[in-house]
Amino acid sequence: MKELEKLLGRIIQRININLRELEHDVSPFIKNLVPLNQMVKFHAFYGITPNHPLDFVFKHSNLAGSYFLGKIRVRNSMLYKSDIRGDELKNRGDVFHYQKFEIPITRDEGIDIEDSFLIKTLVHNFSHDPETLEKFFIRDTISSHYANIHGAPIDGSFLGPFSTVDLTTMRDCVIGAFSYIQAGEVDHLKIDPGTVWVRNPDAFNFHYRYPVDRLKDYIFFDEGVPPQGLFIDFVEDRKEDFGQLFNVFNIERSASVPESSSLNRFSVIKPKTHISENVMVAQRAYLENAWLGKGANAQEQCYIINSRLEGFDITAHGAKIIEANLDKNVFVGFNSFLRGRPDSQLTVGQDTIIMPHTIIDIKEPLAVPPGHLVWGLISTPGELETNSIALKELSQIDDGLMKGNMSFEGSGAVFVNTFRERIHHILEANGAFFDGKKNRGHAQKNQNISFNTIQPYPDGELQGLYPAIVIQP
Amino acid sequence: MKELEKLLGRIIQRININLRELEHDVSPFIKNLVPLNQMVKFHAFYGITPNHPLDFVFKHSNLAGSYFLGKIRVRNSMLYKSDIRGDELKNRGDVFHYQKFEIPITRDEGIDIEDSFLIKTLVHNFSHDPETLEKFFIRDTISSHYANIHGAPIDGSFLGPFSTVDLTTMRDCVIGAFSYIQAGEVDHLKIDPGTVWVRNPDAFNFHYRYPVDRLKDYIFFDEGVPPQGLFIDFVEDRKEDFGQLFNVFNIERSASVPESSSLNRFSVIKPKTHISENVMVAQRAYLENAWLGKGANAQEQCYIINSRLEGFDITAHGAKIIEANLDKNVFVGFNSFLRGRPDSQLTVGQDTIIMPHTIIDIKEPLAVPPGHLVWGLISTPGELETNSIALKELSQIDDGLMKGNMSFEGSGAVFVNTFRERIHHILEANGAFFDGKKNRGHAQKNQNISFNTIQPYPDGELQGLYPAIVIQP
Repeated sequence: MKELEKLLGRIIQRININLRELEHDVSPFIKNLVPLNQMVKFHAFYGITPNHPLDFVFKHSNLAGSYFLGKIRVRNSMLYKSDIRGDELKNRGDVFHYQKFEIPITRDEGIDIEDSFLIKTLVHNFSHDPETLEKFFIRDTISSHYANIHGAPIDGSFLGPFSTVDLTTMRDCVIGAFSYIQAGEVDHLKIDPGTVWVRNPDAFNFHYRYPVDRLKDYIFFDEGVPPQGLFIDFVEDRKEDFGQLFNVFNIERSASVPESSSLNRFSVIKPKTHISENVMVAQRAYLENAWLGKGANAQEQCYIINSRLEGFDITAHGAKIIEANLDKNVFVGFNSFLRGRPDSQLTVGQDTIIMPHTIIDIKEPLAVPPGHLVWGLISTPGELETNSIALKELSQIDDGLMKGNMSFEGSGAVFVNTFRERIHHILEANGAFFDGKKNRGHAQKNQNISFNTIQPYPDGELQGLYPAIVIQP
Repeated sequence: MKELEKLLGRIIQRININLRELEHDVSPFIKNLVPLNQMVKFHAFYGITPNHPLDFVFKHSNLAGSYFLGKIRVRNSMLYKSDIRGDELKNRGDVFHYQKFEIPITRDEGIDIEDSFLIKTLVHNFSHDPETLEKFFIRDTISSHYANIHGAPIDGSFLGPFSTVDLTTMRDCVIGAFSYIQAGEVDHLKIDPGTVWVRNPDAFNFHYRYPVDRLKDYIFFDEGVPPQGLFIDFVEDRKEDFGQLFNVFNIERSASVPESSSLNRFSVIKPKTHISENVMVAQRAYLENAWLGKGANAQEQCYIINSRLEGFDITAHGAKIIEANLDKNVFVGFNSFLRGRPDSQLTVGQDTIIMPHTIIDIKEPLAVPPGHLVWGLISTPGELETNSIALKELSQIDDGLMKGNMSFEGSGAVFVNTFRERIHHILEANGAFFDGKKNRGHAQKNQNISFNTIQPYPDGELQGLYPAIVIQP
């Protein structure tokens, strides 16, 4: 295991050098995070379909549980339970629209990960940085439990548990637990836990900060202790259900799946789950007594339990929906936690947008009205009032707004339109609008995936590392 | 599946061209042999250890169930349930002794398979042809159910079910069902079913032919029908026990395994099996109520059921031992079928050699004496008398001998010594003589193998074929 230990040491050192100006030593955070003894036993896997460009190069590295759909290059790297979904890679000849520019793509986009350490992490691939359109890279980066790196080149950073970096090019940053950052380009920043920050430098700035005391019950992370809180307990309690998926090759499914929908082989499907047309259920999604209407999707690492989604609803990566009924076209953002109770249902009205990293945790019934934007921590009707706004009202704002811990500056109309366009893009990309011929998306393209499993050297100095693997069509 | 069908068509055509002088059209034999629809569903796997040189290149091919321990290169190829064990590859700088020559090995030996079709087949790798020491190749070759290709470069040939080609360089040949050929170099030969032929051109010639009528009950193969008979039923009846091994990642074992022994992860171990020191149980071995003494080995695709092996016994590839007790140092050759009955035990005395492809199938108790050579079809004490000879007696023969269907010419002493040396080599290579420090063999080196599984494209034109894979240390 010597080489594996050396590799981890090198990554930690490199990140500490990058973060020296922020005076952030990652070692005490990492110590209890990396189960080297377990990583030696895990196997990794990757998916193959005829619909994804394949170019998998993998050297002297450790992975455990991944599916890497599109191209990928990994070098001297450690990953752990990662899903890196190269299914929206740009191709040579494509044209990328950025402000007034039309930028031609000069070569096929790949993914590139080097000396990184990612843990229980999802990386999605819609890279947007106009400076590096052909490359989606993550270099020396440690992201702890259930962090999302979404469409974001990233370098020398440290991401806390349940944090998300979305459409952000980031260098040498520390992102606190449960923070959501969508901020374009950032450099040498230290973001406090529970920060939700959405910025378009030319148009708007949305900022919310969780009350530290209350966030602690959900997620807390400090030096020398592993992450703890309700979120960790919630996923740990359901860990065993996933274990069985990784131990067998052929999975029997209790739900029937229409021809236009797909159910990933590494998702957990518990009884009384209903899958309608054009539905995509991704890897490591967890469905239990879940009713999914036409065009709904359940993205990676989301949980939908005792809930009903009427149709064209989005459950983004890591979102959790429990004892809730969602009307049509509801968007539930990354890592949001929506928990009703058996005798206190949560309902969400049509066209409502639940911001990424929103917590709605109720003990009395609560109805979120249609056409609203909702954010922050909500456990009562009063808090819902403080932490939401009608989209119509928001669209009329063109200077600023403060509501509770939230501040907004700039154009509400641009904010709302940008969000709506993105929701439309997500539904389209996932195949929600498939008409039997046109508008094929992930739901149709990902139906049939071959999964290959790879394991590291079982002993010797290279224990825990993999031989170099090159896979090409 | 178009590409897969084209590939099969090309292999058949190529073999038919090669076999045109023998007027042998393989198409009608192959038609029912190749379960293309199933091959699309199977996954293949290969083993990784720090003790085996790795260089796996694999292009546009179909495999199902393989473990390829050492180097391997496969191109446009189909394989099916194959074990190709590159664990005795020669290294650059080694010296190979052949007659009076000392031949230096100029580059590391690999394995090379191209446009071949192998089915439920084992290929071992001790290549011996002094002309191609650095290359172990199999080109356009179809070998049907449970054929063994052992230490043999081979090209453009067709091997019937349960046939074995051992230490033989063979081109453009047809080998009948259950035939065993160890004949040095052969070319354009058509061998009848049930032929056992061991030839050393300079020293001896052993030849036995099974009575066709009686062999038919055990194995029969003809145009347009799949292989049939007791051997096929025997393996089919136990197929499901293997199925489970391929469907789960972590196997629980009922037998305890000493530190000096190894139990392959893809072997079936049924209750009351006992494993002593220095024992090797290979991939796809099947043990049920089997007692294996020190230094015994159970090679690929062998079956040991309700039997006791006292120690340093060899159960070669494909051999079946049922209701039998073997004293020490008994050798049971390839594909032999030894069947006692619960109330009619078979016993085999010390140092006895059961020739490859021997059938002992009794209904009354039978004791094979120690120190004998045994061959052919035996079901009564009288047939044992006709089909065996004391090794001492055989050693004194230096012209010829005829006994039943067996004829022997040449030096009995050279024949016996060659056999004994080979038995010693097999035990040594398998780690039977390991003393805790020296004489490590497969039993010690193969304890810990990482298995990687690979699957073909799930649909589209390439359905059933794999993307190119290159794996290097």
